[in-house]
Amino acid sequence: MAGNSFGTLYKVTTFGESHGEALGGIIDGCPPGIQLDFEAIEVDMARRKPGQSAIVTQRKEPDSVQFLSGIFEGKTTGTPIGFIIPNTNQKSDDYSHIKDNYRPSHADYVYDQKYGLRDYRGGGRSSARETASRVVAGAIAKQMLPEIKINAYVSSVGPIHLDTPYQELDFSKIESNPVRCPDEKSAAIMEEYIRDIRKQGDTVGGVVTCVIQNVPVGLGEPVFDKLHAELGKAMLSINAVKGFEYGSGFSGSEMKGSEHNDLYNPDGTTKTNLSGGIQGGISNGMDIYFRVAFKPVATIMQTQDSLDNKGNITPMTGKGRHDPCVVPRAVPIVEAMAAIVLADFYLINKTY
Amino acid sequence: MAGNSFGTLYKVTTFGESHGEALGGIIDGCPPGIQLDFEAIEVDMARRKPGQSAIVTQRKEPDSVQFLSGIFEGKTTGTPIGFIIPNTNQKSDDYSHIKDNYRPSHADYVYDQKYGLRDYRGGGRSSARETASRVVAGAIAKQMLPEIKINAYVSSVGPIHLDTPYQELDFSKIESNPVRCPDEKSAAIMEEYIRDIRKQGDTVGGVVTCVIQNVPVGLGEPVFDKLHAELGKAMLSINAVKGFEYGSGFSGSEMKGSEHNDLYNPDGTTKTNLSGGIQGGISNGMDIYFRVAFKPVATIMQTQDSLDNKGNITPMTGKGRHDPCVVPRAVPIVEAMAAIVLADFYLINKTY
Amino acid sequence: MAGNSFGTLYKVTTFGESHGEALGGIIDGCPPGIQLDFEAIEVDMARRKPGQSAIVTQRKEPDSVQFLSGIFEGKTTGTPIGFIIPNTNQKSDDYSHIKDNYRPSHADYVYDQKYGLRDYRGGGRSSARETASRVVAGAIAKQMLPEIKINAYVSSVGPIHLDTPYQELDFSKIESNPVRCPDEKSAAIMEEYIRDIRKQGDTVGGVVTCVIQNVPVGLGEPVFDKLHAELGKAMLSINAVKGFEYGSGFSGSEMKGSEHNDLYNPDGTTKTNLSGGIQGGISNGMDIYFRVAFKPVATIMQTQDSLDNKGNITPMTGKGRHDPCVVPRAVPIVEAMAAIVLADFYLINKTY
Amino acid sequence: MAGNSFGTLYKVTTFGESHGEALGGIIDGCPPGIQLDFEAIEVDMARRKPGQSAIVTQRKEPDSVQFLSGIFEGKTTGTPIGFIIPNTNQKSDDYSHIKDNYRPSHADYVYDQKYGLRDYRGGGRSSARETASRVVAGAIAKQMLPEIKINAYVSSVGPIHLDTPYQELDFSKIESNPVRCPDEKSAAIMEEYIRDIRKQGDTVGGVVTCVIQNVPVGLGEPVFDKLHAELGKAMLSINAVKGFEYGSGFSGSEMKGSEHNDLYNPDGTTKTNLSGGIQGGISNGMDIYFRVAFKPVATIMQTQDSLDNKGNITPMTGKGRHDPCVVPRAVPIVEAMAAIVLADFYLINKTY
Repeated sequence: MAGNSFGTLYKVTTFGESHGEALGGIIDGCPPGIQLDFEAIEVDMARRKPGQSAIVTQRKEPDSVQFLSGIFEGKTTGTPIGFIIPNTNQKSDDYSHIKDNYRPSHADYVYDQKYGLRDYRGGGRSSARETASRVVAGAIAKQMLPEIKINAYVSSVGPIHLDTPYQELDFSKIESNPVRCPDEKSAAIMEEYIRDIRKQGDTVGGVVTCVIQNVPVGLGEPVFDKLHAELGKAMLSINAVKGFEYGSGFSGSEMKGSEHNDLYNPDGTTKTNLSGGIQGGISNGMDIYFRVAFKPVATIMQTQDSLDNKGNITPMTGKGRHDPCVVPRAVPIVEAMAAIVLADFYLINKTY
Repeated sequence: MAGNSFGTLYKVTTFGESHGEALGGIIDGCPPGIQLDFEAIEVDMARRKPGQSAIVTQRKEPDSVQFLSGIFEGKTTGTPIGFIIPNTNQKSDDYSHIKDNYRPSHADYVYDQKYGLRDYRGGGRSSARETASRVVAGAIAKQMLPEIKINAYVSSVGPIHLDTPYQELDFSKIESNPVRCPDEKSAAIMEEYIRDIRKQGDTVGGVVTCVIQNVPVGLGEPVFDKLHAELGKAMLSINAVKGFEYGSGFSGSEMKGSEHNDLYNPDGTTKTNLSGGIQGGISNGMDIYFRVAFKPVATIMQTQDSLDNKGNITPMTGKGRHDPCVVPRAVPIVEAMAAIVLADFYLINKTY
Repeated sequence: MAGNSFGTLYKVTTFGESHGEALGGIIDGCPPGIQLDFEAIEVDMARRKPGQSAIVTQRKEPDSVQFLSGIFEGKTTGTPIGFIIPNTNQKSDDYSHIKDNYRPSHADYVYDQKYGLRDYRGGGRSSARETASRVVAGAIAKQMLPEIKINAYVSSVGPIHLDTPYQELDFSKIESNPVRCPDEKSAAIMEEYIRDIRKQGDTVGGVVTCVIQNVPVGLGEPVFDKLHAELGKAMLSINAVKGFEYGSGFSGSEMKGSEHNDLYNPDGTTKTNLSGGIQGGISNGMDIYFRVAFKPVATIMQTQDSLDNKGNITPMTGKGRHDPCVVPRAVPIVEAMAAIVLADFYLINKTY
Repeated sequence: MAGNSFGTLYKVTTFGESHGEALGGIIDGCPPGIQLDFEAIEVDMARRKPGQSAIVTQRKEPDSVQFLSGIFEGKTTGTPIGFIIPNTNQKSDDYSHIKDNYRPSHADYVYDQKYGLRDYRGGGRSSARETASRVVAGAIAKQMLPEIKINAYVSSVGPIHLDTPYQELDFSKIESNPVRCPDEKSAAIMEEYIRDIRKQGDTVGGVVTCVIQNVPVGLGEPVFDKLHAELGKAMLSINAVKGFEYGSGFSGSEMKGSEHNDLYNPDGTTKTNLSGGIQGGISNGMDIYFRVAFKPVATIMQTQDSLDNKGNITPMTGKGRHDPCVVPRAVPIVEAMAAIVLADFYLINKTY
């Protein structure tokens, strides 16, 4: 139970360190007979990939996935899908300075304390590079559920918020700018802000909003495995995430019941949707929407104190090529984890 | 995998409907040799119990737990702890009006859609009465980890917020007022507000903050089972929860890395704690703190439209005795779920 | 993971010691809408019950099950089925002599070593009394799969073997005699043998054969969760079981491939069935049959050396009322565990 | 839950088809800090490898394992160990004749029925080639538990039995002959018999005995996850296995309690060991021993009727290079699965 699997029936197990031979994973439980669109998988991989634009890390990682099993003549066979993503362009020497040093707000210290040793190169297992495997598993989950539409986008970067309700946004514009914000005006401001932050050698956090549409009624399991509880865990398991809220979220805590209740239409839909598409942990057919808060990337190009493994405080300056803001690249990861959760509950729901 | 179990090594499975014979559960994996303090368990049960004060539901439910196994001469034996909480004072006739009706923002509709039938009495399985079993399991988890201190309290009721940092609060005052807010002035305002809301026949949401202290370094499992991801799932699985954030939370998404990073002291502690006691999903020994948002209770004493199972919209007025605000009684539930998560990771961490 | 759950989607968790308040369990994952035949459940309970005939233990245990949840108006609701079986007639004083003593070939010693303490009354958790909960869960599993026919019977008692192939037996005669052997002549000899063994104050082992008919093609999951692997685990988890074989079993290891292969009929059935209804871990629609070996009950009415917890060897004579031969009462337990395995794989198979 | 994982805390998930790109797997839960002996892993791989002697299949499969993660500077890091075994020398055209044909006593038919399609090349996922991944995981499990000694050997080939008790055998001779039978005289007869069988174009079954020594007291979990129940499942999950018995096994069912009980020595060991080192599902420190029955390989070089996917019976003759008897190569697989079970229970036992 070392925490490297997610899901019950659509189960993803990942392996791999930032600078090892390869990342990869196994998808177990994918139903047979799905004609895979490999190009769609590559598109999602490219959306997560470093070096894709001027406002993300400039590292070069081709991130191409090789499928090793579970697919025959282009179709899933129902047997486990094993895949690897080779680490082709890692520069191990970049990281020698952190061999004996714990970077602030990184996992270096706790890994050493917990395991007694660690692969320090590029953060090892704690690197967000692991999420590449999640994107593969999520891209296949999306193809398992073609009718469900999952759209994530950047709704804030640092202090800049896009407050427009998602219903008024055009999701087709998400990919039209490097920030992945569907409102062009906000996107431009956010992009400018990120460029500024980079110049300062600093980083900034942000929020990703995700909207899931055309979900059938009935996904999710009471009482512990509520749909939003699994979505929350899925999102919180992504590197740098600090918060999750769905439907009315934290602002719902300020409301009265008479304002918050979603009244029914005769067909079972509701006039409002403060519930966020989920009642009692089970999808009710309305749009599911949630927000995911990301902290700023811990590695900054300014000098900060770090701790070495002998208990000395020593100044350290970030090296290498890092993201000034992680949310543009986090968008496909949020979508991937959402897709994995839905695929899992979809299969579980077939057992009734 | 019908969602009624939580945890891996300290595993809780619950059963029971609001108006069935009894609620109950099985705690599997509790280590042997723990001398149980049964009074402490009853104290936590009493904190969750209806009718405990003027600002919560006036239902009478004795909520006393009967242990059936796993305990011998006052000590845990390492075998599963089975327990029941009889439903002694339920008035089933109170609920006949919802037999064929779906209350707004309740789980009635989705249960009928998912299962094809439902025990409509008092919400059946979707009732928050289920959380009584969680409090039992959490109270034992607390005794498994006596050195860890878990304190939850109400930090907001509707629009009334207690913004004082937790470090400046006196947790011993949490139980000094019916709101469970350790700041007496805020507590008085919140209590007044809840009384007002009740008079209006309305309900209101709120926020519970939880602080966990003296956590050893190393609890939590990367990459999917991060400590905060499991805490988040645990909290989101509680009835009426809409959001979870830990450490800097959503406000952290507005910060810069240079502000957000927690710099080390030579002993491995950090000067600040925006991380919220967790790095890379693993506890770092600093205080863990998080906030949980609860929506207003859906059952209000005003007339609202409901949907019947033939597709007709019909007016309905809430009957029975319900909470105007759920957060005072949610405090021990938040603590219980936190304790279960910690107990589970504590056992997992022993396997390294 | 303390080993008190069985199954993945049809999941049974049990609790309870031989002389505690009650035994019981939770069945999670039972589909909704099954009209339960409670009498059929009681019939299986009665088949397992002590005191049912002259050749089993004469203890009086009413063993009536009380359902606490998951059932509404006689139908399963899809929520967990909690149940208890009160321990009404236990004589705790009978067992004071084993408080500090380890009976040979019992679990007393290993429980003390593993847990540091044990509920010594009647074997505590290691008592076969726990199997009463399995019979409840199995009886409901049978009702979930009404088309599948599961028949277990006693095929040997000590040295007395019934070698007739199951195809030539009349399963309706299984319940016609206290041994549960469908061949009346063999049954009489076996019964006589057991009476003799009892007079000697001794016990004897035996074999239960189980035949499962009308199984749909496709149940079972490669590669680790093969249908026969789960059946094997299920049977080996029953108290006193020492061996499991299916289809040709151990005798198949002596055969040649040209003899052992089951040739096809055009409809996919096979002319022979040495495979035992399973190919590659997946049911092929032919009869599944297997044999389960039970050792003799360890408690005998003769004097034998035991070990006390101070390292002294002390003579001990079995007290109380024990089975001279366990297999007649094991028949419904074997059926129950088989039904649970099939119910689980049936649900898993619905996810493809 | 598609059945491709084994174990709870030491958890192995495998992927791969006989003729895909590669086999492989992920070992999750291996503790950190184990200095791996890669040569020992290769030795076990070589013992399973085709072409290793004149009495096994003459296929050439290099079967070398590549570790991709979880190991740093030769030591395990506590993160998941991903590995692949490339399929370098597969001849896919060998298998075109079974594309539309179901071989008798193979899994072809049930895979097509269950999944609707299958990778027919070399048996696809149902091929015993998958066990190569198990040997890798087992070899690492052995290194996790260096004090425990696991020795498996061939104790029968077809009608030829080695009846010598294991205590009288010299395990160091197991590898001295291609049959892996530690009794040289029996080994010679067995080898001769296998050569004969091969000349007939036939195959034959056999039995592998496994002895596990120096097991600490306390491994195994009541009630469902008994040590022998998991060992049984582990063995029955190996291709071609038809039966499992431990300790006195099936012959124990013929014995009386007065003969079968293992009397204690003052130190907690027992004078006899018909229990097979396990009481109530928990290891008692005595030798664990069990026997595993393998059926004859289904592919024979004689002509037999097969079924095509249109319902026609058509004669078929085995092609390619197959094992006349599988047990010599099964020995390391039995050991590997035993090691995985022990590693898992060892970690679970650390949680008390």
